[in-house]
Amino acid sequence: MEFSKRIDQMQESPIRKLVPVAEEAKKNGKKVYHLNIGQPDIKTPPEFMNSIKKYDEEVLSYSFSEGLPQLIESFIKYYKTYNLEFEKDEILITNGGSEAILFSLLAVTDTDDEILVPEPFYTNYNGFSSAAGVKVVPITTKAENGFKLPSKDFIQSLVTKKTKAILLSNPGNPTGAVYTRDEMNALTDIAKENDLYIISDEVYREFIYDGFEYKSFASFENIKDRVILTDSISKRYSACGARIGMIACKNKDLIKQILKLCQGRLCVPTLEQIGATELIKVSKEYLDDVVEEYKKRRDIVYNELKNIEGVICEKPHGAFYVIAKLPVDNAEDFVKWLLTDFDIDGETIMLAPAEGFYATPGLGIDEVRISYVLNENSLKKSMNILKVGLKKYKKNNTL
Amino acid sequence: MEFSKRIDQMQESPIRKLVPVAEEAKKNGKKVYHLNIGQPDIKTPPEFMNSIKKYDEEVLSYSFSEGLPQLIESFIKYYKTYNLEFEKDEILITNGGSEAILFSLLAVTDTDDEILVPEPFYTNYNGFSSAAGVKVVPITTKAENGFKLPSKDFIQSLVTKKTKAILLSNPGNPTGAVYTRDEMNALTDIAKENDLYIISDEVYREFIYDGFEYKSFASFENIKDRVILTDSISKRYSACGARIGMIACKNKDLIKQILKLCQGRLCVPTLEQIGATELIKVSKEYLDDVVEEYKKRRDIVYNELKNIEGVICEKPHGAFYVIAKLPVDNAEDFVKWLLTDFDIDGETIMLAPAEGFYATPGLGIDEVRISYVLNENSLKKSMNILKVGLKKYKKNNTL
Repeated sequence: MEFSKRIDQMQESPIRKLVPVAEEAKKNGKKVYHLNIGQPDIKTPPEFMNSIKKYDEEVLSYSFSEGLPQLIESFIKYYKTYNLEFEKDEILITNGGSEAILFSLLAVTDTDDEILVPEPFYTNYNGFSSAAGVKVVPITTKAENGFKLPSKDFIQSLVTKKTKAILLSNPGNPTGAVYTRDEMNALTDIAKENDLYIISDEVYREFIYDGFEYKSFASFENIKDRVILTDSISKRYSACGARIGMIACKNKDLIKQILKLCQGRLCVPTLEQIGATELIKVSKEYLDDVVEEYKKRRDIVYNELKNIEGVICEKPHGAFYVIAKLPVDNAEDFVKWLLTDFDIDGETIMLAPAEGFYATPGLGIDEVRISYVLNENSLKKSMNILKVGLKKYKKNNTL
Repeated sequence: MEFSKRIDQMQESPIRKLVPVAEEAKKNGKKVYHLNIGQPDIKTPPEFMNSIKKYDEEVLSYSFSEGLPQLIESFIKYYKTYNLEFEKDEILITNGGSEAILFSLLAVTDTDDEILVPEPFYTNYNGFSSAAGVKVVPITTKAENGFKLPSKDFIQSLVTKKTKAILLSNPGNPTGAVYTRDEMNALTDIAKENDLYIISDEVYREFIYDGFEYKSFASFENIKDRVILTDSISKRYSACGARIGMIACKNKDLIKQILKLCQGRLCVPTLEQIGATELIKVSKEYLDDVVEEYKKRRDIVYNELKNIEGVICEKPHGAFYVIAKLPVDNAEDFVKWLLTDFDIDGETIMLAPAEGFYATPGLGIDEVRISYVLNENSLKKSMNILKVGLKKYKKNNTL
């Protein structure tokens, strides 16, 4: 029995594929700190469950394909606080940010088209692109250089007749980089000059540190009909299990096209939309506190990483990830070894090998993505495990 | 700004595209009986909300990509009651039956491949096929003939080198037809002889009347590694808004491949899986009562339809739909007219024009799909509205 080429070529999620190894370690009694996945330990605001518990319809019926009107209204109000104006027929509710990106790709690309993606990038962009039959053309950026984008001319040189869109996250997962105004200007110019869409994944909008300014690609008036904003409540409100995302676009005709995909899958779960409606109304203070907490965590991880011999990393200014280059030949082997052969007092860590976050073969093999989503104490312990583990692993490998 | 060809060519859902016309009618004070959509009015068993209300985790975190273990276990036990044996690594939980079908298609077809689909078929198969870039090759069946499949030789003649799968629903949406043993044997032989998968959508499994026997394609030992069973709790437990579906397949390697797609979208909502786990444990008596109720409804609709002059329809033996050929030139015009220009005492009906349930151009233009998902009284009123409406519409059109 054969499978499709597209699925055969699809990589396993580097964030999730080593889960069985971690599960085995846990079975053997080890405690595993999960720094591999962006699953925050922050409490979900109680507004979510409280509103769901009030649901008393006798029939749990289909919702609207475009999403619950009150949830769309909630998003509109939220965006207004960022000076982003959307109307109700410019927003579609999706099954998480994942579906938002997949549907956006399906709407603006055909098979064998190309998209430009700054690498390293959120690894599941690979999966969505494979599903859509689209070729990822990476715009390579490097840790040593703070993940700065190359020049406009260089990026322009990557555009072909088949290029249909630029897909990116800002603030960046896994880089933690926040695009500067100059970088954004270069990208929006390229989009305009080459008739491209920008699919802008802004799920980490609030997670910006060190006084860096947040600016949405959706705020550029001159390309507003070619910016597809994708979003999710998962990280912002620590509600990853709700799977509520969204597409917003000033191009109403494009929204109408994507609505056909939404109609195909009928609707997003009703209850989760009810909970999300209330979550989005949670006060700005809640988010300020969360971001303050993440800044502390970022500082712990970054400061510890700097002090580990042979580790190279740039200070991330956004999101809650950092890419670290490790003094090992193969980061995946090391990550596995940490789970199978190493512990300190019965505790170890799980990291995400970074190779799967790159499209260029060979890049990221000695890198990992670290999610700083755990409390300070766990992060301190984790960084010590990494430090001691690295020393022991190198010693083993040079014997 | 251009859109992708695939989305441009995608049809709007014939079930949902006239919703704005219906909303307008409601704004003007009309009551609309919705026979266009398979949204039952049966109460969702309270087990669903009761179990969700007990959820007390502080963090609503990601679930497993393959699904909650207890929900998978629930499905395994449920299938055992139908003598279908699945192991836990042979089942994946999906966002409704919709995602189950889309993922199955992506896993076994590449762009420009072909799938055989008996028509008329569940209209969203069109949407999923467009998204996957796959060509639907219809196996035409006709109301006048009880939607019987053509001969094995004829179906065989539709197979090309590009054919990868047969996609069907059994019992059939929108036909209400239940495949006979001979028809199933023909299809399974064709699958085996031509190295095809059978994607079998069995969400209406329990909805069978008149003593017809239910047999799953997954019960054929000789092709068990090529049958992909897709399922959903939506209709069975009147929980359409939960969006919980499933893929089951004895071909563990295929399941592993589809798991990559599941990992890409991270997981299905946690709460809905908890609710679904308990729903599936609901007693067989609940389902027996539901099916008895639908049989009554089927009888009302079928008996009334038979008495309307010029209407042609076959008695459906399964699911809760019937395709009716109407004495009009264009069923969509008639359906719109019912909403905009007709009512009896302020009440009218909404039907689904059937053209979108066919892939062959020109077929179904004078047909509608009627969902008998409302209570007896509403159905009786609805059939009267249809009868009087048809008479008036014909009169208007012959003036």
